[in-house]
Amino acid sequence: MTHAAIDALSAAFGTKISTNPSVCLTHGTDESSHAPKAVDAVLFAETAEDIQRAVALCAAHGLPVIPFGTGSSLEGHVIPLERGALSIDTSKMDAILEVNAEDLDCRVQAGVTREALNVDLRDQGLFFPIDPGANATLGGMAATRASGTNAVRYGTMKDVVLGLSAIMPNGEILTSGTRALKSSAGYDLTRLLIGSEGTLGIITELQLKLFGTPEAISAAVCAFPSVEAAANTAIMVKQIGLPVARMELLDAKAMEAVNKYSHLNLEESPTLFFEFHGSQASVAEQAEMTADMAAEMGGGAFTWSSKPEERSKLWGARHKAYYAMLALRPGCRALTTDVCVPISRLAEAIMETTADLEQHQLLAPIVGHVGDGNFHCMLLLDPDSEADLRAAHQFGARLAARAQGMGGTCTGEHGIGMGKGAYMAAEVGETGMAAMRAIKTALDPQGLFNPGKMGML
Amino acid sequence: MTHAAIDALSAAFGTKISTNPSVCLTHGTDESSHAPKAVDAVLFAETAEDIQRAVALCAAHGLPVIPFGTGSSLEGHVIPLERGALSIDTSKMDAILEVNAEDLDCRVQAGVTREALNVDLRDQGLFFPIDPGANATLGGMAATRASGTNAVRYGTMKDVVLGLSAIMPNGEILTSGTRALKSSAGYDLTRLLIGSEGTLGIITELQLKLFGTPEAISAAVCAFPSVEAAANTAIMVKQIGLPVARMELLDAKAMEAVNKYSHLNLEESPTLFFEFHGSQASVAEQAEMTADMAAEMGGGAFTWSSKPEERSKLWGARHKAYYAMLALRPGCRALTTDVCVPISRLAEAIMETTADLEQHQLLAPIVGHVGDGNFHCMLLLDPDSEADLRAAHQFGARLAARAQGMGGTCTGEHGIGMGKGAYMAAEVGETGMAAMRAIKTALDPQGLFNPGKMGML
Repeated sequence: MTHAAIDALSAAFGTKISTNPSVCLTHGTDESSHAPKAVDAVLFAETAEDIQRAVALCAAHGLPVIPFGTGSSLEGHVIPLERGALSIDTSKMDAILEVNAEDLDCRVQAGVTREALNVDLRDQGLFFPIDPGANATLGGMAATRASGTNAVRYGTMKDVVLGLSAIMPNGEILTSGTRALKSSAGYDLTRLLIGSEGTLGIITELQLKLFGTPEAISAAVCAFPSVEAAANTAIMVKQIGLPVARMELLDAKAMEAVNKYSHLNLEESPTLFFEFHGSQASVAEQAEMTADMAAEMGGGAFTWSSKPEERSKLWGARHKAYYAMLALRPGCRALTTDVCVPISRLAEAIMETTADLEQHQLLAPIVGHVGDGNFHCMLLLDPDSEADLRAAHQFGARLAARAQGMGGTCTGEHGIGMGKGAYMAAEVGETGMAAMRAIKTALDPQGLFNPGKMGML
Repeated sequence: MTHAAIDALSAAFGTKISTNPSVCLTHGTDESSHAPKAVDAVLFAETAEDIQRAVALCAAHGLPVIPFGTGSSLEGHVIPLERGALSIDTSKMDAILEVNAEDLDCRVQAGVTREALNVDLRDQGLFFPIDPGANATLGGMAATRASGTNAVRYGTMKDVVLGLSAIMPNGEILTSGTRALKSSAGYDLTRLLIGSEGTLGIITELQLKLFGTPEAISAAVCAFPSVEAAANTAIMVKQIGLPVARMELLDAKAMEAVNKYSHLNLEESPTLFFEFHGSQASVAEQAEMTADMAAEMGGGAFTWSSKPEERSKLWGARHKAYYAMLALRPGCRALTTDVCVPISRLAEAIMETTADLEQHQLLAPIVGHVGDGNFHCMLLLDPDSEADLRAAHQFGARLAARAQGMGGTCTGEHGIGMGKGAYMAAEVGETGMAAMRAIKTALDPQGLFNPGKMGML
């Protein structure tokens, strides 16, 4: 059946289809600890019509389809399961279709990466704020409801997508949303697609909100005597409503990794990375108030980076933290947890988690978008060790339950994918799961869109 | 069949059920120009379990159910169609279940009104910003994806609801979302229910974001020589990213109505009402920059209201504008349009609309949440005049098409209800309508939840 599907796809698409084993394996590989698995073929789509035709052929032959951006998923989203898959690579759909400076919005194809968009916008005094670290495609970011370091100020993908186009399982193009800033016209199909992880539709275009480049930007790092002191500083900053643009926690182990990897000399203590956006006066005021709160919690002096190149170096180091931490244990892969809790419970959640890691002798640096109450433990494990994997999964389950018990979620931004289906069921309940499955079945009756992910069939 | 349903409901609920004709008519009446129609019975629900039992009984007898908050809908949402309905009145479910000041959130029952919530919050230095004018219930506001005067700064209901509980058509309680500020756990059922107008579930509880009361608040009005000058000022304020909290347009006719109704002496020219929130310094800076831009467009002097009682008077007059305009033509009802366009097209959209009104000799004051690109024409019509109704509907259709042609929407905040189904179909297309109907059928196979609204079956 799969063979017939690939034959039909090859006949239809010629050189746009690859069945090269290495290409197929790359497209079934992400950055998580889930074992890679080759897809059956890869379509390098150039147009929405390509995707429509491929979806129709796959439907005729019962072959699943999985969209692929850059493969930076941390939850196995792009990996095919038992039934195999055609991977639909959107990287050639990388046109910035329009930028409306006067409306602070733009329309892009799904394969545009966030960095490519920002390079294009720079000369117009605009920027797109959502920054998950990896240079992911905007389509992939929408499909996983991504957020990252700027979300504390600018929101997540659900907040910045005004509308989208997607190929639905029936092969038709859905266009949802408008260029207006708000709408009450019918079910919010835009937000239904955002975070649906390729299980309901393949996003081909996005209408995105943009922001004016701030008049002033300033970044700083501040070391703390304990993770608790750093977390409590973040809580205070958030509670008084200071509009901090970034507020990132790295624990001592993460700082050690970052220093080694990025050749820096930062103190290897729990550290907050800050960024402030606004007018000169506002940035100065925010920075002063934050420094006061940090000092109150025992934080050290602020090390400032106001020049663009210094800031780039600092945030480059933060963004490479994932690779830096992987380098702490050569040959390892990482199981990355992603809980998010109400901000008032953040210090407690991190403290209990640190104790848990120590008790179980697990190596797992912690980094966190703490302004959102979101933090990641990077469990460095030997992918061939059953014991490592088991211990990591048991820890992940305890952590998810801990966060949910505090009124939080098992995933702030990485999605459910292959690894968190059971946690999601605990979080949304039987009624929630039944509603999601009913929607999935209604829109994808053949179950061919990224089947088996997100706890769906 | 309906009779058997009412008998069963009466037996189950006793005095919680009313079939009093006046109560039934009130619950089939809203503030729109749609003709009122009595429901078959009203359940004054006190608990979610009441609603579950009622939904089960209605399902057994095939009787539709329609949730009712305060009846302030402007699109006939609460009016039963051919099959009749049980109205589920949530006004007794008015408990504020918890307020978490440290997390800036709260949990309320659906029948709490926005004013009741703000009275409760006042002593804690917190407020809930979404303000559609009417003192609607928060459940009704969520169900229609309401917004209003503060949306330019604080967003719409879709942005401030962290999670909710709802009774689904199968009688089960769905609980979606968490208290965490973000989540990527599964389909966004919270935002699917927001704006679903009672067609997918009956909202019983809401987890809401709150905001700290600003250190300083200042309000002002400014008269302009033309609607275009006022609209262009709003566009400039928005384009430079000034965080204005409110920016409302009233045209000369609306100002005349407001003066008469609220005994004010404001200039009867196109006018912008502003409100600024922030620190003392920030409010002063925002106000100065706005006044400069208004002056550049030919605006007059700013009339300031910094004292709370003055501000209340000013915004009270704005909020009563709907009733003030109705009073311009005694005995009339209003057909209220609700288009929203990209901000760059706002002045053009209003100008073309004004010309259209003049050409067709229609009396329709204009008010607008112009910071969002959203404006309302209030067509004052004799509800018994076929000619009035026909002319108003023809105008509404032209306006919706005009806004959609500019990349906008037929409804910014009032919803689809009974009046905009055809406009929605034009906006979301066949694929969008098919997806919405598939979801509706999957979750409500009997079609008993507010049937016939929103272009659904």
